[in-house]
Amino acid sequence: MTEHVLVINAGSSSLKYSLVDAATGEAAATGLVERIGEDRSHHVHNGHEDDQRVPDHEAALEAAVQVFDKYGPSLSEIEIVAVGHRVVHGGDRFAAPALVDDDLIAAVKDLIPLAPLHNPANLEGIEVARRLFPDLPHVAVFDTAFHQTLPPYAYTYAVPSSWLDDYGIRRYGFHGTSHAFVSEQAARVLGRDPGDVNMIVLHLGNGCSAAAVRGGQSVDTSMGFTPLEGLVMGTRSGDVDPAIHGHLARVAGRTAEETDRSLNSESGLKGLTGANDFREVLRLRANGDERAKLAFDLYCYRLKKYIGAYYAVLGTVDAVVFTAGVGQHSAEARAAAVAGLEGLGIHLDPIRNADPSGPVVSTDESPVKVLVIPTNEEWEIARQSVAVLAAR
Amino acid sequence: MTEHVLVINAGSSSLKYSLVDAATGEAAATGLVERIGEDRSHHVHNGHEDDQRVPDHEAALEAAVQVFDKYGPSLSEIEIVAVGHRVVHGGDRFAAPALVDDDLIAAVKDLIPLAPLHNPANLEGIEVARRLFPDLPHVAVFDTAFHQTLPPYAYTYAVPSSWLDDYGIRRYGFHGTSHAFVSEQAARVLGRDPGDVNMIVLHLGNGCSAAAVRGGQSVDTSMGFTPLEGLVMGTRSGDVDPAIHGHLARVAGRTAEETDRSLNSESGLKGLTGANDFREVLRLRANGDERAKLAFDLYCYRLKKYIGAYYAVLGTVDAVVFTAGVGQHSAEARAAAVAGLEGLGIHLDPIRNADPSGPVVSTDESPVKVLVIPTNEEWEIARQSVAVLAAR
Repeated sequence: MTEHVLVINAGSSSLKYSLVDAATGEAAATGLVERIGEDRSHHVHNGHEDDQRVPDHEAALEAAVQVFDKYGPSLSEIEIVAVGHRVVHGGDRFAAPALVDDDLIAAVKDLIPLAPLHNPANLEGIEVARRLFPDLPHVAVFDTAFHQTLPPYAYTYAVPSSWLDDYGIRRYGFHGTSHAFVSEQAARVLGRDPGDVNMIVLHLGNGCSAAAVRGGQSVDTSMGFTPLEGLVMGTRSGDVDPAIHGHLARVAGRTAEETDRSLNSESGLKGLTGANDFREVLRLRANGDERAKLAFDLYCYRLKKYIGAYYAVLGTVDAVVFTAGVGQHSAEARAAAVAGLEGLGIHLDPIRNADPSGPVVSTDESPVKVLVIPTNEEWEIARQSVAVLAAR
Repeated sequence: MTEHVLVINAGSSSLKYSLVDAATGEAAATGLVERIGEDRSHHVHNGHEDDQRVPDHEAALEAAVQVFDKYGPSLSEIEIVAVGHRVVHGGDRFAAPALVDDDLIAAVKDLIPLAPLHNPANLEGIEVARRLFPDLPHVAVFDTAFHQTLPPYAYTYAVPSSWLDDYGIRRYGFHGTSHAFVSEQAARVLGRDPGDVNMIVLHLGNGCSAAAVRGGQSVDTSMGFTPLEGLVMGTRSGDVDPAIHGHLARVAGRTAEETDRSLNSESGLKGLTGANDFREVLRLRANGDERAKLAFDLYCYRLKKYIGAYYAVLGTVDAVVFTAGVGQHSAEARAAAVAGLEGLGIHLDPIRNADPSGPVVSTDESPVKVLVIPTNEEWEIARQSVAVLAAR
């Protein structure tokens, strides 16, 4: 018997949903409502466009229910066992998914200062879904939860110790649902028990993060207190000297908030090239654009440094795993990231890498396998939701 | 014939000097005037204390000349061929030491915004020394120069590209004089030409930095735009999520400058334990102090990650080299930093490491040698000064 989970990812002006078979990952439907609250919203459901004014998240979810009836599949014919909600920040309170109840909602509210853009939108999604589906169990799946296994020396910053107590400043890590899914899939590909495998997972989408996974548990990750730290991303800087803020305050009168905004929204590939999409950077680079060449080199160089750092953290590595948009689709980025790492036992097969037919793109003899594994956060949320129900 | 160089390192309220034989590194005299401008300054010259009021750097250097007469060696009996000045920031203008002239002084002045504390003091030292030794050639040796060989993808941050042009924001790196000296000495120990050797140099003093040195040239280093980035230090945080400033502004009303001060002066070992001296942290840890244990673990874990990152950068590594206070004297830190790195070919010899009699503390079979090399920045400044004169 199939168990379907309605997976909801609510952003500040968007609502993404999918109806996923938890056993197979097959999505009976996927939909996205964008520009909620604007004059004309945009709604796509299984490829059908259905634009109308959608004033708020409640109306967006109601619109979604209507288009299920209009374009199918009919919700009366599919048994939904749970609603699974993506929640960005679980702080140090949630190391696992959890059933939504009033206590959980209060805890997620408490964490709003740590995720001022995301957690309020996620809560809004939970609240409207509970009103529309009052009889279904709702499960919150946290983007931070997978990284709650980091040891203290990996999650602590060398800052005044009161900052942890007073402001919660420590490494949390994000993309946890993707890292959990991909690392389990990778162990399966290797024919190994996840508990026996060490790997480095590189999630390269608009946001990018690396994780060191030892025996199925995250032991370090590149995103930190927020999703700003670490790798170069579409619009985010990743690692920089933290003295930049003070310098810009002194020489340019910029506030901490202004520099923060620049590092989050005007940096990364966009800051270097004007384009935040990696494909556009590749196109510019192919046309001889020097800034795009530098951005590509820098992006891949930072990947290489994290691979080395996490190799040292893990001691032995069974696989380097690429996932998400760039990770799955850019052979050039993968090749540049692992170029020259034969000393670490990483041998890419250029032909497999150029056109991956299977997940393995390293040579047969490579001691460290290089894998390309599509991520599927919706499936992982569905699986975790069902697991929470089974554990009740 | 011996060639002596008077090496001067002027701080904001201190003047350090030594009279160094450029060929042997032997110091005929070393001295330090501290608390310049305070009611009672402190002056040590070859172990002799000579406290008096020293109102400014000119008076400090005059006092130094006097104690040479008083305690020896007499400056009339030693031929000084040059005065070598440590200058912290040479920006991207100086990739090598240079003769001091009015153009150089103007250039170092232009760089003051990048080193607001150090460059003015260094300039003050240059100016008073030129007045007191008008007939000697003066050479400026820059702490940043050795790292000017970093490739663009290693020195560029993924920030708005205008920040480089408008504010000079890029990685410069520091401790260059020490990294240059130590990496050359290490090649000598290995019996190899520096141009053929790849190594990772860890300079661990109050400030700490790592450098990846390929064939005698620095290709990456952990300090960045300022000496704040990278490893955990006595009072500096090293790497943190650059979103911390914006968060503290929002939740605690802290300005960028206030957070900058905290990250520079109240963080690192001091922020975690209250003690900024590594020996004190070791003592506390030995007494079971949990915060000191965490600080030690974090300090060494960060070292391990940089070793891994630079291993990936270099591809092959001949030696990991420890230098400066902690690097030369803490067997525990060295052991923890390379523990579990046998997969990278790094095999420490615990007995050699515990009590190093020679520079090598790895096993005879270790593919990557681990070395302990005392740094000697004064000697390096003397050598570089003589080299500049020879090249005239």
